[in-house]
Amino acid sequence: MIGRLTARLAPRRVVHAHCDIPCGIYDPHEAQLAAQTVETMVTKIKALPDDDSEARRNSFVRMVTVKEEHAERVKHEIQVLWSDYFKPEHLEKFPELHDLVWKTLKAASATKQNVDAEKAAELRAKVDEVARLFWETKK
Amino acid sequence: MIGRLTARLAPRRVVHAHCDIPCGIYDPHEAQLAAQTVETMVTKIKALPDDDSEARRNSFVRMVTVKEEHAERVKHEIQVLWSDYFKPEHLEKFPELHDLVWKTLKAASATKQNVDAEKAAELRAKVDEVARLFWETKK
Amino acid sequence: MIGRLTARLAPRRVVHAHCDIPCGIYDPHEAQLAAQTVETMVTKIKALPDDDSEARRNSFVRMVTVKEEHAERVKHEIQVLWSDYFKPEHLEKFPELHDLVWKTLKAASATKQNVDAEKAAELRAKVDEVARLFWETKK
Amino acid sequence: MIGRLTARLAPRRVVHAHCDIPCGIYDPHEAQLAAQTVETMVTKIKALPDDDSEARRNSFVRMVTVKEEHAERVKHEIQVLWSDYFKPEHLEKFPELHDLVWKTLKAASATKQNVDAEKAAELRAKVDEVARLFWETKK
Amino acid sequence: MIGRLTARLAPRRVVHAHCDIPCGIYDPHEAQLAAQTVETMVTKIKALPDDDSEARRNSFVRMVTVKEEHAERVKHEIQVLWSDYFKPEHLEKFPELHDLVWKTLKAASATKQNVDAEKAAELRAKVDEVARLFWETKK
Amino acid sequence: MIGRLTARLAPRRVVHAHCDIPCGIYDPHEAQLAAQTVETMVTKIKALPDDDSEARRNSFVRMVTVKEEHAERVKHEIQVLWSDYFKPEHLEKFPELHDLVWKTLKAASATKQNVDAEKAAELRAKVDEVARLFWETKK
Repeated sequence: MIGRLTARLAPRRVVHAHCDIPCGIYDPHEAQLAAQTVETMVTKIKALPDDDSEARRNSFVRMVTVKEEHAERVKHEIQVLWSDYFKPEHLEKFPELHDLVWKTLKAASATKQNVDAEKAAELRAKVDEVARLFWETKK
Repeated sequence: MIGRLTARLAPRRVVHAHCDIPCGIYDPHEAQLAAQTVETMVTKIKALPDDDSEARRNSFVRMVTVKEEHAERVKHEIQVLWSDYFKPEHLEKFPELHDLVWKTLKAASATKQNVDAEKAAELRAKVDEVARLFWETKK
Repeated sequence: MIGRLTARLAPRRVVHAHCDIPCGIYDPHEAQLAAQTVETMVTKIKALPDDDSEARRNSFVRMVTVKEEHAERVKHEIQVLWSDYFKPEHLEKFPELHDLVWKTLKAASATKQNVDAEKAAELRAKVDEVARLFWETKK
Repeated sequence: MIGRLTARLAPRRVVHAHCDIPCGIYDPHEAQLAAQTVETMVTKIKALPDDDSEARRNSFVRMVTVKEEHAERVKHEIQVLWSDYFKPEHLEKFPELHDLVWKTLKAASATKQNVDAEKAAELRAKVDEVARLFWETKK
Repeated sequence: MIGRLTARLAPRRVVHAHCDIPCGIYDPHEAQLAAQTVETMVTKIKALPDDDSEARRNSFVRMVTVKEEHAERVKHEIQVLWSDYFKPEHLEKFPELHDLVWKTLKAASATKQNVDAEKAAELRAKVDEVARLFWETKK
Repeated sequence: MIGRLTARLAPRRVVHAHCDIPCGIYDPHEAQLAAQTVETMVTKIKALPDDDSEARRNSFVRMVTVKEEHAERVKHEIQVLWSDYFKPEHLEKFPELHDLVWKTLKAASATKQNVDAEKAAELRAKVDEVARLFWETKK
């Protein structure tokens, strides 16, 4: 999975959205990795041994918490890109931007409420699409 | 200022957006108060005595920090309402919602970068407009 | 439940305790909503389906965490009102204030340690009583 | 200053208030050190060179922030001891406890609002008094 | 357990690492208590009643979370001591310092991944050894 | 500056250190960007207009805070890589690892205490060297 993500990122400028001074450094990278982590957590939760051991329950609590935190991180990072990086001229070029962002945030909330591989994949696809639009504006 | 805000809120259901279980409790109240706090901080910074005393500089650092935190809180609260509360049927009724939210978030970031009464007032007006749409959906 | 809360709040000034510049804006609203959320979480946990599915366990972890966070929020908000808003003249008028606050904080800690509807109701009643005293001082 | 604090702590059980499982581990140590840090920050701010260099202003911002955070930490730690450790039987023995805690929290808020050595010393004295009562209950 | 810890600390200077102004106040105390809390949580989790009640599951989630947070706190506190307090001359005297710190951090991460009394004891022993070196430098 | 960073990262696997389940995803990317942000903040602070306007002082407070947070983030990210990713076999191959990490953390703390371009550059160079060792282990 990492390989595929890397492949997509490789030829692009790797910059990062992390402060609002603004310092002019924006990057969909962290949002993508957070979405991927949500997906990994779903996979790992489903792969837990089918017993009632403390070890399994300890892992379950930790994985649900990590899933929750990274779904929240997706929401935060996408919101920062949308509100601080994307400008009116980008919106003109990509009139679907607002709706895409809205549905990406909703997809992130959905992954919190279940342990659902399909919803996690949908989140990742949407975040990747936001990233694609981002890199289009850099061309 | 509080008086006016209260007047606007009085006849409405006072509920609150604070978790994404979801618990079904949403409220633009905190976003409005955060926007109002940003405005109050701008007023208070501008009213600081014109000297170089430690007391003044201590207050300046604290007020800029509070302004920053509440502008960030506006962004977070508005994002939660938009992504978790507003549904497709609301969007149909208020097609301007996406753009209003986008500009509200941008207005919040703008208040961080300066000590500007006009920008703070603009933020408050936009947050109030999101709140108005919210309460319209409750009618 | 929201309806009842709103009814109680409606004719009052809706202001908010959120910074200690001080900006003079205090409000028991957030404490009340946090107490109500604790109560809602207890209800929701008890209403979870009686199976061992991932979905149920995912919800259980999330709801316990939300319960924990909102019980903690009650404690913080009540402490802020007590230490920053209430003045010696209020204490003279309400000599029971200190003990009420103490027991409210203890009630909040108690809701963390169990999933107990009675304890959650007790917390809400105590927070409402602090709010009542607060609004009395505004008359 | 550290020496004096250590002297006071030396013969006592050094335990710590840090979770509310409850794990039964409470300690006024962190509150005392936080109060002492507030005092140290006031001293350090007052000792800054009297110029307008970036270095001085960089230190000023950092020291005000550390003062703020540790005054807040005092409030949190004292609230935890008061609400989670002290029991009705302690209150009977120390009927002044409620009022002492209240004034300690107010003293902490006061140190935020200025750069005032006297107020910082007052905070430390009050926190030490809470600590003294705490250790009295351990005898 | 507290008794033993206290015994070790009693004759030492009790100072504390909490800010990086720097204020010159460092102390391995918090790291030791955090390691001890991890150990206490493991003991408490293993002592939970063997049923599937909400009360037990509520406690389990809370204890795993506290274990996680305190293992993380150990890592943070030990890193602060190592990077901010220990100087080249200390390293010369204790050439094993780097490796000890590295293994202490790894031991902390290990306690998160299981509910394992042996690993918790190993963490505590390593943290105590860092504390011993710290106090050696104070002689 | 971004360009140079990107050039260095381009042919490498872009993965990320963000949780300790462990999920096996580690990446020095965030540490590098945080170090770069520290450097950017130093440059921006030095480029502030030489006046005493509110706008300048507002920016100064914000930039010092961002510098502080990103220096802290460098410390956290480097600590995670060192303690969770690097294994004994890596240490055998790079016996300088411990000392490099130690000095990198010390360099991060140093950038907090001043507004010093040289110290910021030194931090970036050290973080890049940790990243280089990381990628060497991936070959």
